[in-house]
Amino acid sequence: MITKISPLAPKTQKKTHKISGVSIASIHCGLKKNNKDDLVLIKFEEPSYILSVFTKSMLPGSPINWNKSICKKEKVSAILINSGNANVFNGPKGDRVVKKIVKKLASEINSYEDEIYVASTGVIGEPLDANKIIKKIPTLINKLKNDSESWLKAANAIRTTDTYPKTHSEKFNGKNSKFFINGIAKGSGMIAPNMATMLSFIVTDANVSKFELKKKFSQLVEKTFNSITVDSEMSTSDMVLLINVRRKQPQALDKTEKKEFFRKLENLMEKLAQYIVRDGEGASKFITINISGAKNNDEAKTLAMSIANSPLFKTAMAGSDSNWGRIIMALGKSNVKLDAKKISIKFGDFLIFSKSKNFSSKNLLKINNYLLRDNITISISIGDKKGKSRVWTCDFTKKYISINADYRS
Amino acid sequence: MITKISPLAPKTQKKTHKISGVSIASIHCGLKKNNKDDLVLIKFEEPSYILSVFTKSMLPGSPINWNKSICKKEKVSAILINSGNANVFNGPKGDRVVKKIVKKLASEINSYEDEIYVASTGVIGEPLDANKIIKKIPTLINKLKNDSESWLKAANAIRTTDTYPKTHSEKFNGKNSKFFINGIAKGSGMIAPNMATMLSFIVTDANVSKFELKKKFSQLVEKTFNSITVDSEMSTSDMVLLINVRRKQPQALDKTEKKEFFRKLENLMEKLAQYIVRDGEGASKFITINISGAKNNDEAKTLAMSIANSPLFKTAMAGSDSNWGRIIMALGKSNVKLDAKKISIKFGDFLIFSKSKNFSSKNLLKINNYLLRDNITISISIGDKKGKSRVWTCDFTKKYISINADYRS
Repeated sequence: MITKISPLAPKTQKKTHKISGVSIASIHCGLKKNNKDDLVLIKFEEPSYILSVFTKSMLPGSPINWNKSICKKEKVSAILINSGNANVFNGPKGDRVVKKIVKKLASEINSYEDEIYVASTGVIGEPLDANKIIKKIPTLINKLKNDSESWLKAANAIRTTDTYPKTHSEKFNGKNSKFFINGIAKGSGMIAPNMATMLSFIVTDANVSKFELKKKFSQLVEKTFNSITVDSEMSTSDMVLLINVRRKQPQALDKTEKKEFFRKLENLMEKLAQYIVRDGEGASKFITINISGAKNNDEAKTLAMSIANSPLFKTAMAGSDSNWGRIIMALGKSNVKLDAKKISIKFGDFLIFSKSKNFSSKNLLKINNYLLRDNITISISIGDKKGKSRVWTCDFTKKYISINADYRS
Repeated sequence: MITKISPLAPKTQKKTHKISGVSIASIHCGLKKNNKDDLVLIKFEEPSYILSVFTKSMLPGSPINWNKSICKKEKVSAILINSGNANVFNGPKGDRVVKKIVKKLASEINSYEDEIYVASTGVIGEPLDANKIIKKIPTLINKLKNDSESWLKAANAIRTTDTYPKTHSEKFNGKNSKFFINGIAKGSGMIAPNMATMLSFIVTDANVSKFELKKKFSQLVEKTFNSITVDSEMSTSDMVLLINVRRKQPQALDKTEKKEFFRKLENLMEKLAQYIVRDGEGASKFITINISGAKNNDEAKTLAMSIANSPLFKTAMAGSDSNWGRIIMALGKSNVKLDAKKISIKFGDFLIFSKSKNFSSKNLLKINNYLLRDNITISISIGDKKGKSRVWTCDFTKKYISINADYRS
């Protein structure tokens, strides 16, 4: 097993804050080895507003099926997360396991079943033993705490092949109002026997309208969690949940404060998404790809993702090679209409190719030095239109192959 | 450089036949190192019927642009192929280079310019020196020969990172009629500085109607060259050309003979396509993926390709691991509607998963032994409909990363 922390891990992560109205507990229930925590309960004092985004996989896991069936109500009392078993592809039995667990938890905390969200990550196609989880629920409830460490513990408990826990936090202290945002996440590529599903749970107590939150949330997911790729794979269990708890008699955010809130929420989601890429299996370089000048943002994203997912581009980055031919190839295969005469490519600040002129002889030395860094930005302009996109990915190394081939499941 | 022959290379390849009406020559013109042949001329005695399929890349090379501009005429007098430089992304200059070369060749062989096809493979974004090619044209014409060795020489001259030349041949000797089919191909994944574009040139003298040939050709390309993948990348220069030369006073094939012809043509195209996968960069296993029971063939192919291109599936194969969870994941991300209860998965003849029942405990030992072979078949049934597809791919090894990362361009 890989236990060394990713070389791209952030040096520091912001400590999560205490948020009133939410408490957390983690415990070992027997799904992970070595007595490590593998079960997390996030409990809300009052049923709270929840927004959710799920994997687009056509064969999602039973927890996703359950959450999808209740998510229209947009209300949450508790979230129960386990690692070590994804409860995916276990047939109707997998769905029954979820219902049994949800029923037990609902009765223990005196909530409605359709206000209980579940998430599972780990091995797929192996029956999940409901009893392992159920018998720990009372202890878990007793352990619930409303403090900063509990968030970090939870971030640790939901890890599978992640080499470090992922947390971020934002706060705001204004004249009239204040708010906190806490987030945890997991994910490091897709790996079996432990599928490194992307999970993220974000809680805020900001007083902002449901309407505005909902409208903005899907945009922000698109710009953050949906703008990362490690190996082009899509998990059967991905989900991002955003919960809005309400403090007593809070004053609604004014226009400026709201702007600040969404800026900070975006920053938190961006950080967590980047932490997942920075934990990409075998990754040695963190890569930002900017596309500009496209017809619209969707086309720009298609192009950016075509590069970000190209094995040839990613192996060139692993080799610190300024092989822009592979970028051209990846743009070309994206099915987006392109005009070769309008394309410019920059590695960092250095043009390597501009509108049919190849600058490699002039800039090659500088670029080759730049590409030795572990943080690379590639900017491509494809025309003069307004569409743009930014995605994050990592390089493709022998270590990725080792992690994913040199094991026996 | 990698020079060792792929472990998956066929033990023997059928010797090409002499086909009347077509002659071939290969020569070194200075694009490849070590005085290796890098220029091939295929010349037809009479202007012949030609069918073509080109890359769908949105940034194709100048040779593709030229061929596309003349292909509606469906007539060919000569094909000129160079390796060592792909003439891709060289702007209007690249197009001018092609025109200059075509003009020269047309005047030398006394043909129309729009009956001259060109193909280039090799480094991209580097100007192609027209004169290197032009000055060799007279010698090349003098060297034209109509024999079997010339085909093999040509297959060698069009190689870039290919570890072996790819040829196949079929013949038929009937009561009333006879025919030959010769084919050469190149390709081994996409690699820079030499992009291992897929090129294939097939010549037959069978007396079959243009209409039937055209109708069948696109179907056969779909089933063969469009059913292979090494690393999900699409080259800027891919092309497959089929040329039908006519022997003097040949008798038209009867119904049975026609059937035999198309069977043999398919077999040849299948062999060449498989030879490309068998030369996949770093490949240690040749993998066939069968999908059946889909709504239609297109959906079946989408599913098959989603598995064949999945880095996690391909690394599992490299590790001889029966990780069917990765197959489920790859099916799930394909965007095709699926019913988990109807899915069955077989490794070779061994069921590992059938309609929500996991047989791994029973069959695991047999399957793990089976997966140690270098020729693996995976068969997946997703329902009871008629749609099916078969694709060929290879595993994903550390050697692929070495080839594509550990070099400096």
